[in-house]
Amino acid sequence: MPRAPLPLELQHFLDAARPAIIATIRPDGAPSTTATWYRWMDRRVLVNMVASGPRARNLRNDPRVSLTILGENWYDHVSLLGRAVEFRDDGKLKDLDMLSTRYTGQPYPKRHLSCVSVLIDVERWHSWGDPTYGLATR
Amino acid sequence: MPRAPLPLELQHFLDAARPAIIATIRPDGAPSTTATWYRWMDRRVLVNMVASGPRARNLRNDPRVSLTILGENWYDHVSLLGRAVEFRDDGKLKDLDMLSTRYTGQPYPKRHLSCVSVLIDVERWHSWGDPTYGLATR
Repeated sequence: MPRAPLPLELQHFLDAARPAIIATIRPDGAPSTTATWYRWMDRRVLVNMVASGPRARNLRNDPRVSLTILGENWYDHVSLLGRAVEFRDDGKLKDLDMLSTRYTGQPYPKRHLSCVSVLIDVERWHSWGDPTYGLATR
Repeated sequence: MPRAPLPLELQHFLDAARPAIIATIRPDGAPSTTATWYRWMDRRVLVNMVASGPRARNLRNDPRVSLTILGENWYDHVSLLGRAVEFRDDGKLKDLDMLSTRYTGQPYPKRHLSCVSVLIDVERWHSWGDPTYGLATR
């Protein structure tokens, strides 16, 4: 599996707001997956989650994480393997609103949440299909 | 997180050929994700993979696995946590062709592969959004 950094064209792929699935490790070592918003920030991925939820618990316990990001055609996808390197309190939901606006055009409607942002350092990656198909960078 | 069996309406959701992402555990305990075809078979999930590839290696080493299956709207999704309970040689690509036909309408074009089918026993699940939206069972 290739090591980071990602080729530039895959970074462009990640710049768009795409469906992503994140896998974390439960306390017993089993994987757990769910869909997530993300934002590619240079060599890192920002994700946001409920501060007291299972994902944050898992990542604090074992920072190793994997994300698969899907193209418009889901057969085109990029997977990023890495680890959570920073936990940032998102008490004012600034990051959540940034993500929500990116994906939906609106700030996040629920305001009572207590969230945390997690920055993921990407160590390896793999891709399938042609994630860069149709991107302006071609 | 609810335990299996899944509610019937979520089983109907899984009956369709949907985008799915599978997480397995690498030998060092880190998660690894990628997209996959699947077929829901009563209480089990069938997935197919290259017999000598990383996914099969991971599952033989640690059978614990998680899948997230996406609806037409990716905000509607179901995740299945379980373990690989059966490895079935797919030397004649019968299962691969079944999956390929299900997703693409055609048998799999590459015939030189050596594949294995893995049956996953689902132990827990969680969902988000409204995966059953628009299904005929409603």
